[in-house]
Amino acid sequence: MQSADLLAAVESVLTAELAARRAQVVAIDDRLAADVDRLIGYISSGGKRLRPQFLCWGWLAAGGASAPLELPDGVVRAAGALEFVQACALIHDDIIDHSDVRRGRPSMHRSVQQAHAGNGWAGDSAAFGTSTALLLGDLALAWADDLFNDGLSALGHPAGAASAWRAMRTEVLGGQLLDLRISAEEAADPGSAAADAMVVNRYKTAAYTVERPLQVGAALGGAPQPTIDALRRYGAAIGVGFQLRDDLLGVFGDPALTGKPAGGDLIEGKKTVLLAMARAALLGHPERLAELDAGIGTALDPQGVEQLTRLVAATGAPAAIEARIDELFTDGLAALDAVDESGVALVGADAAANLRRLAEAASARDR
Amino acid sequence: MQSADLLAAVESVLTAELAARRAQVVAIDDRLAADVDRLIGYISSGGKRLRPQFLCWGWLAAGGASAPLELPDGVVRAAGALEFVQACALIHDDIIDHSDVRRGRPSMHRSVQQAHAGNGWAGDSAAFGTSTALLLGDLALAWADDLFNDGLSALGHPAGAASAWRAMRTEVLGGQLLDLRISAEEAADPGSAAADAMVVNRYKTAAYTVERPLQVGAALGGAPQPTIDALRRYGAAIGVGFQLRDDLLGVFGDPALTGKPAGGDLIEGKKTVLLAMARAALLGHPERLAELDAGIGTALDPQGVEQLTRLVAATGAPAAIEARIDELFTDGLAALDAVDESGVALVGADAAANLRRLAEAASARDR
Repeated sequence: MQSADLLAAVESVLTAELAARRAQVVAIDDRLAADVDRLIGYISSGGKRLRPQFLCWGWLAAGGASAPLELPDGVVRAAGALEFVQACALIHDDIIDHSDVRRGRPSMHRSVQQAHAGNGWAGDSAAFGTSTALLLGDLALAWADDLFNDGLSALGHPAGAASAWRAMRTEVLGGQLLDLRISAEEAADPGSAAADAMVVNRYKTAAYTVERPLQVGAALGGAPQPTIDALRRYGAAIGVGFQLRDDLLGVFGDPALTGKPAGGDLIEGKKTVLLAMARAALLGHPERLAELDAGIGTALDPQGVEQLTRLVAATGAPAAIEARIDELFTDGLAALDAVDESGVALVGADAAANLRRLAEAASARDR
Repeated sequence: MQSADLLAAVESVLTAELAARRAQVVAIDDRLAADVDRLIGYISSGGKRLRPQFLCWGWLAAGGASAPLELPDGVVRAAGALEFVQACALIHDDIIDHSDVRRGRPSMHRSVQQAHAGNGWAGDSAAFGTSTALLLGDLALAWADDLFNDGLSALGHPAGAASAWRAMRTEVLGGQLLDLRISAEEAADPGSAAADAMVVNRYKTAAYTVERPLQVGAALGGAPQPTIDALRRYGAAIGVGFQLRDDLLGVFGDPALTGKPAGGDLIEGKKTVLLAMARAALLGHPERLAELDAGIGTALDPQGVEQLTRLVAATGAPAAIEARIDELFTDGLAALDAVDESGVALVGADAAANLRRLAEAASARDR
């Protein structure tokens, strides 16, 4: 199984599923075509399909085989379902964060808002955009379950897959709720702020992006518990490392490579582990802490961004996070080498090689 | 099976499910207890459990028996799942409509907003309320599927139940999207406005409240197709009648009985079939139409409400709707008397009696 074949299989399932869903929605009323087409465009043009890839490699790892394997349709359906959950998460997250842009295009609520204004429809365009996007996110979430359950059913309901899927959905929503709550409480203690940001990372991103998709895939393949444990250890480490890399890129990333503005997280005032650690490091330097706090979350000009970026770099927090990422990747990759009591690899060589490749892509400084 | 036993069984499943979900959420971080408890309170104190009742009576109808039957746990789980969908629908609907009140208490987003303000948390209380409510609605929707699938699995995945469940979710969201779209387009032609409001009714309320829950229940019970068809015919008619009764109560209802302000739909400017028909009837009376349009959707005082109420009554639209409700109920109840080629009732006597009772409760002028 090549990665390109896997991605093509996922796209093909998504295309067929979306066409079937479109027919159902248009049967209600054909004026809904524009709405459902917007959701179809969103899901069809969505990102790197990281989560489906992890699910598929989890399934392949369960086989313990190194030879190329064909993915059964049920596995690809379950993998595709993750993109529907992700569509809901992004659409609703952008509503919550009032984000104008997603993947270089207008976010869903902004795009609907623009259509409303362009059509000269009645009422408030922004409210219409938010309301429609909210409901399209709900549709994506409902359809995610439908597609996942089709996959589960095609594979004969293997034990453990449904519970991992459920845990994943509860965790990502729980992580988002916690993120809101923590931002609102604004913990005065920067030490606990870093720990809090780490918990949010774990549930909102790490478990949801790597650990749980791998676990679902492995459970769908009937993997023995030690294999699942090894994959989860890999997934937990790589997922957190992935998010910490994002924190670094959000401040130090090259806009030409990240596609995001320089110092984007500083301007947004995002509560990252990096920025919480930088604040903690400045506790003994109240003037510099005040300078950081005064600038974060404001419309900084390029000079202001550069100044704060230097300030954050000087705290040593970025270096500490680089070191932590290294540790996490060492630990995560080591999990792929685990063997059972007779010395047989718990994760098949083919799957392990691809998971190594995905880990490297996720940790790369230029992604 | 008595209706009270059925309701007690549903409450018991909801209580157990919510407790299990609470434990999972609090395991993420115990600061989420307050959020999940708010959702638990919302679902626990929710309404008349109409949808679960229809599902259970659909299952009992499938048995074709008149003797009291015990409901299997799987059926009660599937029935309870409808209350989770409903929680999502109401929470998200109140966000969309900026509604302050639900079931005589603050709506979810307002209640969270008040807690935010009361705790003196950072940031905008209204935005925090909306964001938290949005995510709690998502949790309810995800959990709805989990509970439904538990029921489905306990009953051995009977044919047709999952597809009816899926259609229901897509339809209620499609109906809501269409509602937004139609309000935005503000059809100039009042005739098409009444037809549009009817389509929204059908999907947003009628199918979702009666027809689909009955169909899911009957499919879970392995009902033959003619029984399912009879139940759906009943459900489609009663569901639309139910919503038309709501339209009448929204203008003419006694606040002491409805718990809503007199003329509530006039003040809200709700796009009901009743008001669309009233506008259509006034096409030949431009002055009175202008008076109606100028008043609808504004903060009317009691005198203004009374004046518009009289104006609507004089159009004849309420009488036409009363007549339509009568027709729908006659047709719906007739479906319960259908027999197969050997003269055997398609819907068992016990289920038919209870469905008659539910129809009467739904059509009652004082509900």
